Amino acid sequence: MSLDIVLAKSAGFCFGVKRATKMAFEAVETHDHLCSLGPIIHSPQVVEMLSDQGVEVFNDVQDIPQGAVIIRSHGVSAEEMSRILDRDLIVVDATCPFVKKAQEDVARLSSEGYSIVIVGELEHPEVQGIVSYADSKRAYVVANVNEVSNLPRMNRIGIVAQTTQSIENLREVVSACLVRCQEIRVYNTICDATLVRQNEASAIARQVDLMLVIGGYNSANTTRLAQICKEIQPETYHIETAGDIDSGWFNGTGKVGITAGASTPRWLIDEVVSRVASYGK
Amino acid sequence: MSLDIVLAKSAGFCFGVKRATKMAFEAVETHDHLCSLGPIIHSPQVVEMLSDQGVEVFNDVQDIPQGAVIIRSHGVSAEEMSRILDRDLIVVDATCPFVKKAQEDVARLSSEGYSIVIVGELEHPEVQGIVSYADSKRAYVVANVNEVSNLPRMNRIGIVAQTTQSIENLREVVSACLVRCQEIRVYNTICDATLVRQNEASAIARQVDLMLVIGGYNSANTTRLAQICKEIQPETYHIETAGDIDSGWFNGTGKVGITAGASTPRWLIDEVVSRVASYGK
Repeated sequence: MSLDIVLAKSAGFCFGVKRATKMAFEAVETHDHLCSLGPIIHSPQVVEMLSDQGVEVFNDVQDIPQGAVIIRSHGVSAEEMSRILDRDLIVVDATCPFVKKAQEDVARLSSEGYSIVIVGELEHPEVQGIVSYADSKRAYVVANVNEVSNLPRMNRIGIVAQTTQSIENLREVVSACLVRCQEIRVYNTICDATLVRQNEASAIARQVDLMLVIGGYNSANTTRLAQICKEIQPETYHIETAGDIDSGWFNGTGKVGITAGASTPRWLIDEVVSRVASYGK
Repeated sequence: MSLDIVLAKSAGFCFGVKRATKMAFEAVETHDHLCSLGPIIHSPQVVEMLSDQGVEVFNDVQDIPQGAVIIRSHGVSAEEMSRILDRDLIVVDATCPFVKKAQEDVARLSSEGYSIVIVGELEHPEVQGIVSYADSKRAYVVANVNEVSNLPRMNRIGIVAQTTQSIENLREVVSACLVRCQEIRVYNTICDATLVRQNEASAIARQVDLMLVIGGYNSANTTRLAQICKEIQPETYHIETAGDIDSGWFNGTGKVGITAGASTPRWLIDEVVSRVASYGK
C-alpha cells in the first residue's frame, strides 16, 4: 500500500499559543513553584508535559499556593485577575495579546457607556474572560444573529468577537444590531489564524481520501476544524495523538490529509505523520 | 367613468421640511431682507411662493446682500457656514435636525481620528454638506457596497448615511468596511420617514391601475419614490403639479393611487386630488 500524505502548512500552534507555551516552559526554569489557573492551552499533552515539570493546574485562585501563577492563553476574568493580584502571587501573563486587546476594548467601551455585545460561545473561557471586563448589567454574549432578537433595547452598542469567530458571524450580528440602535462601535477582534487554518483544511479535505485533525478533544477550534473537514470528507477523524489512530481506517486509502488545531504542538503532529507514513511502507 | 382615489397617509412634508418651511414663512414676517442659500426645499412651487414674498435665492454666499439668510433643510457646508458667519448676516438655520446630527457626528468622528465614510449620493447637497465637516483628506462618499473596494486602507472608520438612504445599503457598506479595518463606528443617521413613505407607496401601487407621485423634478426622494412605484405599476407618473396631468391617462382606469415626496406641500397634493376627482364625475 502506498500512502500519499498532505500536511497542512497552517497545522498547529497559532501565535498566541506558541507564545504562551514558550512563556510557560521559560517560567518553569525561573520559578520554584509555578502553577497555572486552568489549563494553559487546550492540549492535554502539553499540560501533562508541564505537569511532569511540576506545574500544577488549579481551577480556583484561592487554592493556588504561594509562588508564581501563569495566566492561560485564553485569559482570565477581571475578578480572577483581581483576586490573583490580591493574593500577592507572581504573575506570568500568557494571555494571547489578541484576547487581551478584546478584553481592553470591552473595558473601554463599557466605561464609555456602551452596552456590550460579544459574538462567541458563552461557555468558552476566552468569552467568559472578555465579558467580565464589561459592566455585567449591560453585557450580552450572542452565539449568532438569531440571538440578537432576544436582546433588550439599547441605544449605543459596542461589539467585539471571540478571536476565533468567523467574520461572517460577526457581520451578521453587526447588521442586526445596526437597525436596533443609534450607534454601534465594532472592534474587529477576530484573529485570521483560524480562518487561514480552516480554509487550508477545506482545500486539503477536498483532494484526499481520509482526513486526520489533531488536537485536544476539549479544544473548540480543533472540534470546529474537524466538523468543517467532515462536511467535505466524511472519512475525517479527530484525534489527540498517534495512539488514537486505527490502522483499519487506511484500507484502500491512497491520499491522507493531516491538519491540527491551534493548540496542538509540533511533536504530536510529527508523531502522527510518522505513524501514517509507516502504514504506507 | 367612476374613479376611486387612494391617497397615501405619508404623502408630503416630512418633519424636517415642515419645520424648514414654517421657519421660512415666519422669517419672512420678521426680517426685511430675507434670502436663502440654495432652494430652501426641493419644491419649486414653495420656493416660488417665498419668492413672491421677496425671498431671493442665491447660490453663493458672497452674492447675498446684508440682512438675514435662511439655511435650507439639506444644510450647507462647513465652509459656507463659516463664510456666512464672517459676513455678519442674521442666520435662520432651517437645517433638518437629523441632517445636523449627521454633520455633528462626522465632525466628532473626524476630530477623534476616524477616517469617514458617508453612504449617499455624492452630488446631493445634503451629502456635500455632511462630508464638509470631516477632514477632507480622509473622507469618502460611497453610493453603495461596490464602491467600498475602491477605498484606501483605513484602520478606524467612522460611518454615517445620508438621512434618506435605505438601511440595507448602509448595512452592506458597514459589512464590507468591517473586514477592511480594526474598528468601525457607525451612527445610524437614517430617518425612517423615507422608508415609511416608500413602503406605503409600494402597497398602494400594488392595488391601483395608475399611480401619481407628486414632487419637484429636482427632488431625489420624489424621483426614487416614482421609480419604486413604476417597478410595481408601470402606469406611474411623476408630476410637480395638477397642471402636469394629462386627462388621457385615465382612460379605462378605475383606481388611482396618489403619494408625494417629502418636500411636496399639502396644497399641491390637494390640487391633484381635486383634479383627479373631477375626471371621475
